[in-house]
Formats: sequence, C-alpha cells, structure tokens
Amino acid sequence: MRNVAVIGMGHVGATVAFTLFTHGIVDNLYLLDKNQAKAEAEYNDLRDTLARNDYHVNVFLGDYSDLKNIDIIITSFGDIAATVKTGDRFGEFEINAKNAKEVGAKIKESGFNGVLINISNPCDAISTILQETTGLSRNQVFGTGTFLDTARMQRIVGEELNEDPRNVAGFVLGEHGASQFTAWSTVSINGKSAKELFTKEQEEKLSAQPNKNSMKVAFGKGYTSYAIATCGVRLIQAVFSDARLFAPASVYLDEVGTYIGYPAIIGKNGVEKVIPLELTSEEDEKLKESAGIIKKHIAQLK
Amino acid sequence: MRNVAVIGMGHVGATVAFTLFTHGIVDNLYLLDKNQAKAEAEYNDLRDTLARNDYHVNVFLGDYSDLKNIDIIITSFGDIAATVKTGDRFGEFEINAKNAKEVGAKIKESGFNGVLINISNPCDAISTILQETTGLSRNQVFGTGTFLDTARMQRIVGEELNEDPRNVAGFVLGEHGASQFTAWSTVSINGKSAKELFTKEQEEKLSAQPNKNSMKVAFGKGYTSYAIATCGVRLIQAVFSDARLFAPASVYLDEVGTYIGYPAIIGKNGVEKVIPLELTSEEDEKLKESAGIIKKHIAQLK
Amino acid sequence: MRNVAVIGMGHVGATVAFTLFTHGIVDNLYLLDKNQAKAEAEYNDLRDTLARNDYHVNVFLGDYSDLKNIDIIITSFGDIAATVKTGDRFGEFEINAKNAKEVGAKIKESGFNGVLINISNPCDAISTILQETTGLSRNQVFGTGTFLDTARMQRIVGEELNEDPRNVAGFVLGEHGASQFTAWSTVSINGKSAKELFTKEQEEKLSAQPNKNSMKVAFGKGYTSYAIATCGVRLIQAVFSDARLFAPASVYLDEVGTYIGYPAIIGKNGVEKVIPLELTSEEDEKLKESAGIIKKHIAQLK
Amino acid sequence: MRNVAVIGMGHVGATVAFTLFTHGIVDNLYLLDKNQAKAEAEYNDLRDTLARNDYHVNVFLGDYSDLKNIDIIITSFGDIAATVKTGDRFGEFEINAKNAKEVGAKIKESGFNGVLINISNPCDAISTILQETTGLSRNQVFGTGTFLDTARMQRIVGEELNEDPRNVAGFVLGEHGASQFTAWSTVSINGKSAKELFTKEQEEKLSAQPNKNSMKVAFGKGYTSYAIATCGVRLIQAVFSDARLFAPASVYLDEVGTYIGYPAIIGKNGVEKVIPLELTSEEDEKLKESAGIIKKHIAQLK
Repeated sequence: MRNVAVIGMGHVGATVAFTLFTHGIVDNLYLLDKNQAKAEAEYNDLRDTLARNDYHVNVFLGDYSDLKNIDIIITSFGDIAATVKTGDRFGEFEINAKNAKEVGAKIKESGFNGVLINISNPCDAISTILQETTGLSRNQVFGTGTFLDTARMQRIVGEELNEDPRNVAGFVLGEHGASQFTAWSTVSINGKSAKELFTKEQEEKLSAQPNKNSMKVAFGKGYTSYAIATCGVRLIQAVFSDARLFAPASVYLDEVGTYIGYPAIIGKNGVEKVIPLELTSEEDEKLKESAGIIKKHIAQLK
Repeated sequence: MRNVAVIGMGHVGATVAFTLFTHGIVDNLYLLDKNQAKAEAEYNDLRDTLARNDYHVNVFLGDYSDLKNIDIIITSFGDIAATVKTGDRFGEFEINAKNAKEVGAKIKESGFNGVLINISNPCDAISTILQETTGLSRNQVFGTGTFLDTARMQRIVGEELNEDPRNVAGFVLGEHGASQFTAWSTVSINGKSAKELFTKEQEEKLSAQPNKNSMKVAFGKGYTSYAIATCGVRLIQAVFSDARLFAPASVYLDEVGTYIGYPAIIGKNGVEKVIPLELTSEEDEKLKESAGIIKKHIAQLK
Repeated sequence: MRNVAVIGMGHVGATVAFTLFTHGIVDNLYLLDKNQAKAEAEYNDLRDTLARNDYHVNVFLGDYSDLKNIDIIITSFGDIAATVKTGDRFGEFEINAKNAKEVGAKIKESGFNGVLINISNPCDAISTILQETTGLSRNQVFGTGTFLDTARMQRIVGEELNEDPRNVAGFVLGEHGASQFTAWSTVSINGKSAKELFTKEQEEKLSAQPNKNSMKVAFGKGYTSYAIATCGVRLIQAVFSDARLFAPASVYLDEVGTYIGYPAIIGKNGVEKVIPLELTSEEDEKLKESAGIIKKHIAQLK
Repeated sequence: MRNVAVIGMGHVGATVAFTLFTHGIVDNLYLLDKNQAKAEAEYNDLRDTLARNDYHVNVFLGDYSDLKNIDIIITSFGDIAATVKTGDRFGEFEINAKNAKEVGAKIKESGFNGVLINISNPCDAISTILQETTGLSRNQVFGTGTFLDTARMQRIVGEELNEDPRNVAGFVLGEHGASQFTAWSTVSINGKSAKELFTKEQEEKLSAQPNKNSMKVAFGKGYTSYAIATCGVRLIQAVFSDARLFAPASVYLDEVGTYIGYPAIIGKNGVEKVIPLELTSEEDEKLKESAGIIKKHIAQLK
C-alpha cells in the first residue's frame, strides 16, 4: 500500500492531496496542519468526494505519531502572504525556518525513515533545514526546486515558438527564487539547440520569465497552486514506482555546498544520483552566485 | 474534440478546470471571470502545469464570443463569503441572481446551444434564472443540486456503518440548501434497506448532517471546493460520453413547478428524462415544502 | 509500493498485466508462466511500452521465489481451448486442477502471505483447490466468480431497457458456469425493482444470457479477455486501497459449504465479510443446486 | 464528442479499442472487421466491461457508412502469421496491399474527412496506399512507423545504462522494418550525447535490437500488441487534443519521396509539419537506402 502524509494544508498542500486522491495514486493519505480546523475542513471536503471518485482512498486527519509507517512526506507549510507582500520567497523564510525546525524535530521523533519531498519556501533553504533536523540522509530529503521553474520555462519557450511545452527540453537551475536562471546550453526544442534559435537578448528576456510569471500568478490569485502541486505529485509517483525520473529538483550539490535546483535521478530512495551537467563557464558562474545567495540566507538565520 | 467553458473562476470553478485538465477530460478549456486578473492567474497556473501533465489540454482565457462552439458551460460564479456569513446559500442569492441574468443574457447572445451545468448557489434558483435568461430548454440546463448532498449522505451513512460510501445507494432530495432531506425510503446499504438499519431518530439526525457538514467545511476553509468540483466533473463526463448516468441533480420537476434536487438520467442532451420515485407521503410532503421555499425566494426576487 | 504477481500469461493474465501497467495501478509487476517463451514475449511487449506509458511500472519475469514479498497474486492459468470445445468451463477442470495443486504448493513454499485472487476456471472449484493447497485462509483466497457474470447481466438488462449497465443493481449468484442464475429479487434498475419490469418468462430468458454471451465471445475470438481482466483489476484495486467494495465474487459460503458466487466486502484482507442476502425460496434452491454441482465436480476429482 | 473507428479487429486493433475504452479517451468507438464474428466477439467483450469501467464509452459494431462523421480512423488489419513466418513485415504486403486498396476505396466513398492513422504492415507502404486510395491529404494520413521502434530503442538503451526509457531521447528512422536504424546523432541519455557513451560497435549492436526484439515478441506470443497499441493511442490523443506532439511517425518525406519513419509534429490536422533533422552523412545515406527499399516494394506491387 502506498502511504503519504502532507504536512501543511494551505492551497498547495490541499491541492497535492486532492490530486493524489482523484488519481488514486495513494492508498492512505494523512493530512496534517497546525490549524486543526483547516485540516479538518480539507479532510471533510475530500471525504465528501469519496462517493464520486474513481478510486477509493483512505483519508485521515493525521498526527506526527502516524508518520512512522509512512512512505513519503510532503512538506507544504508556509506563509504565502509574506512572499506576495515582498515579491520574494525569502519574505517567508524566518517564519518557515522556525516551523521547519519544529516539523523536522517531530518527524525525527516519529521514527519516519522514508522520503521527504519539500515544497515549503524558500525551497532550497527549507530543504536544508529539514534534512538537518530530521536526521534523514541527503538522498531521502529533496525539494521541488526548479522542477517547477523548468516547467514554466518549457511553457514560456513553447509559447514563444508555438510548440507544446513537452517539446522543450532543458533546465532552469539554481535557487527556486530570483537568482534562478535558464541554462540555455541544455535547452533544445524539437531536438534543435536553443542556441540556434534565440539571440543573447532573447535568452535573457526569456530567462527572467519563469520567476516573473510565478509572481504574476501569486499576485493574481493570492498564491500559486496547480503547477507546483502537479510537480510534487510527479515526484511522489517517481518515488513509489522507482521510476528513476530524470528531473531538476532541489538536491544537495557537493560542488556548491548547498541544496539547489539541479538535475538528478529520482527513485525509490529519493535522490538516486545527481547528474553532472557540462555547463558553460557563464552558467557555472550563475550557479555559484545562486548558491551563494541561498547559503548567505541560511547563514544569516543562524 | 471536447470543449468546455467555465464561467466563474472562484475556488470551485478553478478546481473544476484543474480536474478536467489533469484528467484529460477536455480538449479545449475556456476560463471566464469578471475579474480578469483572477482568470489570468488561473490560466497561467494551468499553463505552467502543461509540461508536467499526463494530457495535453488547450487552455484559453475565454470570452463570451467563444461560447458559440462550446459543448458544455459550467457556471460557478458566486459570493461564498455571503453564504459563510449567513450559513445559508440564499445569503448570496441577490448578487448571484443579478450576475445570473447578465451571464444568461450574454450566453444567449453568443449563440451557445449546448448543455449548461450550473453550480452557482442557491443552485436551484440560479439554475431557474439561467434557464430562463439563456432561452435554452429545460433539458439543456440543470444544476449540481443534491448530487453533492447525496455524496455527503453516502459518506455519512457509510461512516456510521463502517462501509464505503459507494456501498450506500439512495438520494438526498429537494433544495441544495437547508430544506433538503434524505429520502430514506430510497436508501439501502449493501442492498439492505436503511429502514431496517436506522430508527426514526437516527434517520433525522443523519439527514441533517450533509448540509451541516457542508457548512462546517465552508467555515473551516472559507469555501467548499473538492466534493462539489468532482460532482461537476462527473456530470460533464456523463454529457460528453452520453452515459445516461442515473443521478440526482437540480432538474425541473413538473409536479412541483421548479428546479429542485431529484433523480434524472444525464446524457448528451443534458437531462434525458426525470425518473419518478415512489416516495412515502411524508417524503412527498418534504419535497413540496422544499420546492415551496425555492419558489418563494424566486418570487421575492421579482 | 504495490506488488502484484500474475501466474498464467494467457490472454486473460496478459490483459490483467497490461491493464495494471497502463493505469499505473502497480509498482512492481511479476509475470509467471510455465511457458517461458510466452512469459518472456509478454514481458518484452510490456517493456517496449514503457517509453509511451503515462506511468512507470517495474516489470519482471517472475519466479516462485519472488512471491514472498508480493501483496496480491492473480492466478489466470488455463486451457480455454477445452472450454471452447465443450462449451463448459468444467471442460478444463482436470488439467487446471492439476496445475492448481502444483501452483498452490509452490505458493505455499514461497512463504506468500497476501491475497490471492483466482480467475482460473472453473473458478469456484479452482479457488477451492488453491485455498486448500496454499494453506492461506478463506479470507485471503477468493475468485472473480460471478463478479463478471453480474457485469454481463447488468449489460444485458441495461440493453433491454436502454439504460447504462451501471444503472442496474443486483447479482448473478452461484457457479461461474452453466448453473449460475440472476437473483431477480436483488435486481433493480434506476431504483425500480426488476420484479415490476419483467415477466417471469422475460426473467428466465434474460437470466440465461450472461453465460450464453460469454460462450459467444469465446467462440468468436477463441477466448474472453477484456471483461474478465477488468473485473480482476477492480478487485486488485479494492484490496490495495482497502475499498471495502461490495461485490459478488467466488467466496466460501458456509451455508452451502463451497466457494461460490455470492456478495462480499472486499478489502485489504481479501474477503472482509460475506453479506447475507434475503433471497426467495426459489433463489435459495437454485443457489443450493449450483453449490451441489460445484461440490460434485470437486468430489469426483478426488 | 470524440469518435474513433478501428478497422481490423486483430490483436492490435482490439488492444487499441480496449485501451481507448478503459482510459475513457473516446466517446463513440466503432469496430470494423471483415470477419463479423470476430468483430462481434470484441464488441461483446467490451460491452461486458461497461459495468466495471471507470468511463462510459459507446461501442458500436461499425460499418463503412458510419465513417462520415468519425474524427479518427485506425487501420490495423493484417496477416501477422505471414510476418511471423518470414520474419519480415513485407511477408504480409501482398495481402495487406489488396485490403488497403479496398479499405481505402470504401473510406473515400464514405465521405470521411478526418485523420487516418495506419498501423497495418508494412506500415510505410500501406500508409502510402491508404493515402492514395482514400484521396485524403498527406497531412491527414500517417502511420505509427518508427514511433514504436523508437520506444523499443529507448527501452534497450535504457536497460543498457540502467535508466528509465523516458530518460532516453532520440530517434529510430526509416522503414518500420529491417532497414530501420537508430540515428545516434539524435540520441542522448539524461542530456548526454550517446556519441560519448557508446563505441561504434556498441551502436551497431544496439541499433539492431529494436527490430530483433519485435520479432522475438512476435515469435513468442504469435503477434505483438501492447507496445504498438499504446503507440497508436498516444497518436490518437495527440490529434484529439491538438497536442503538437513531437514524435517520429511514418510521414511523407519529400526529400526521399515516400512515407517513412521521421519526426513530425502531430496535431488536430494529423501531420502539422515534418521536423528536419541535421543527420550525419552516414545517417542520411541509411535513410535514403531505407526509403529505396520501401519504394522498391511499392513499385513491384504495381
């Protein structure tokens, strides 16, 4: 049986739960939130869906004591209002860092030994804290990171060229935040290198869009939910089925010494391996800069 | 190709759109809302999902002029805050009635001639206005009505007996609101009549739960979304595949002279036929009372 | 992770495997067949599907030593040619009984302790042998039985009345074979009792159709595969998700002393409970007769 | 509503129908076969599945007169025994060419004006005949071609490197038959060029595997069905949703003057455009050779 716990029943956590539920991806689904009334409302809304769902899923109002036998934990707590206010995910770092420490400690205490996929922002920094406080290995803990920003880049490049986003290959790397960048040397469309299709100026303009678009969505509806939740669900599926999915995610990258958006193979153990890229020296530089920003914020917190 | 337009991008409309999108139920999906920033945010969030979705779906920021060639319209505009404030869906009647007239007139003008499924509340009354203002036939227009309340009853009875909600057959009838009631003479669990399982007192207590539970969800998260969206999607599927689905919905019932929650067959033409029930005289009485409440509210508006 | 082994890679077993595969219902799928070339061909055909499948599924050429950690075994070995030749599923009893004993012994030896769902025919008799030889409890072993015949009855009654088969409730009971019968006292269409819709003569005519139709399919394509495979998959899903599905299946019924088609609740432990029906005395008689035929065949074998 | 007709109810056509059915991809599904008993058996087997299926699908025993309003036709007639006997798909060319002419003429007569996806073998040659005899444009008619062989290559390269087949990008080009070849200059694994991973000798060995493996499956089970059916279904989905799927298929390539396996964009009009590749001169040579073989066979027929 497949068992998932979602910690944090905001729009993102609830949408992850709903998606798992309506696609029958999970057998037992545990919902946790500090705000019991909120968790209970989502629990009841999902339970009311049971008679109309293609799949049976057992939904529970969860508790940290339930985590011992869980396969995958999703962390999706947060304070999106702070991000919307500042236009920067580090706007909610202080409060989320505090929560991450508490949540991490409770997860550790529960005896959980599965895979933890972090969505809470700022994703790379919170993934770092969760890995440290849960005592889980760096393979077991990773974040959605630029898996989402890459989807946004695929969409943006696809629209530019009137192509389906899935015809666009390549990666957004770095922080799931303002210092992220599209690694154009990795991008191709229908097998043709982006380098042949875009000028330097176009590249820079397009590279800024994924993060800008995310803020536009957040400003327009007060949060983002669908794209990020679908990214989380894809990663859950990859772990359950040991898919060895090749995807960018927030993983610990030795050469820069932090969790950061970078391609890896995702399987039953979480991060099965990181896949080194041959970046241009300029891209390498951007990656280091982005890592520096993440590390600076983490250091400031301590 | 399957074409759907969703009018009203609140939590319910957006969740309907997301569910259609992630299940590949629709080929072309048009999103409409008075609040363009909100519609655009949902549009962008869904577009950002494309690269991670199992299905390709063409999503559009729609306009009333797009409706001519649409197969199914979902109306899901509303002012849930007014319902949460009053604890009664008629709390948002005045504002929604006004919107329904405007929306109905624009739909009529567009030349739309498909099926309209209304979710906006108070569902039975708004379905009435939409049918009248669009000029569509009573077959083409129906509401989710007690399709949702019935799901809630199935869940509540199922929990009471430790049974899957799908093992519970039968109907909640009447207003999608406070005067609804469980028609116990129609209810059976694993083939056994509810009449043999519950006392009169238990019946009354259980009968009050579906509507109470809906308000509990609305109070806890500020709205309800998942169960109602899934009901809407099921009805959309029934129309596209001409499933002749036997389900309670808000349909025009000649004998009480109003749209009201009652079983019907849903197919490609919308309501293919209403299925008469042999209710007890007490249930008949409750149905009439409930119809009276709906009609009184509609009359007061005029 | 969800683990399933399919023993017997004929058309039915292969279709079960393919359906599990394309719907992502299973994480690890083990294929077993005496005929290694056949098993390997199905294994390779499924592996060739991986790059085009929505889901990742790990497919293995299985061995009995793999069964220890499997959650669900499907047995689908058989000699359909013998059934087609004789027009009776007992035509393949001798050979399948022999195989069932061998397979059962090997399963026992493997240390398997999950749920075994038997499809091999004659279903009730082979389920009996598998339960006895595996040493698993009567809860852990059950057969598809009249779950399929009931689907056929739903379709036949639905066609008669121009209704969707899902609008037809009720059961075919007894042997998954010639002595099965539709228990009309349990059948309703859109909530209306079949007793009010059909004459005695119509009932008898319709009751003979499910089995006749199955033979018509078998004669036409040399076997039946889609309806039976889908029934098997539904039961697998019910076990994984502990759905407490109310369904007729081949379960051990104390009052007649054999495995036979009768309603039960299917959950994570297999048969969670048998649901007693209040049949008419005539139906009771038919059930006993059908049980007698199953038992006679089993006794003759020994 | 989505309407599909499948012409040819052998294992491949039936599996396409079953997959469309169990995934709810189609609303109306028409089954056609010269052998009415076979078509009727599949029709009945699918109808018997209705009560157990997540989706409602209307299945019909079709006739050529039904094709006028169909959106997509799948042609899957064939004589696989002849291919198994000779180990070459041209073994069934003569009989299939004859059938293709008849089928094409009947399709033309029906007034069908949608998209025709051909699976019948030898795929490139039969696609040619169907395009000519139906009078449909070269955009409207295409074949599965090396979409399947590419999936096989992805699987084989994936197994070699212990990677998921979906992590392998690139194409098998040319005839869906013995003269096909892997265009290694297009192949990459997790973003790394195959050229860096394999020696020339390894490339040649791996390049021979997709076709060899298909024959191994055909010898082992008498036919191939799952991988090819799933390829067909993917292309159907791309047409319905106008996905602009980038995929190799059997498309008319001007520069070699025949239908042949080559990448294209598949959307609502069928082949939206062919995507030119920058092949090595050696690969160009192989493509021309392969085209020559296809053309020679077609010429010999006339």
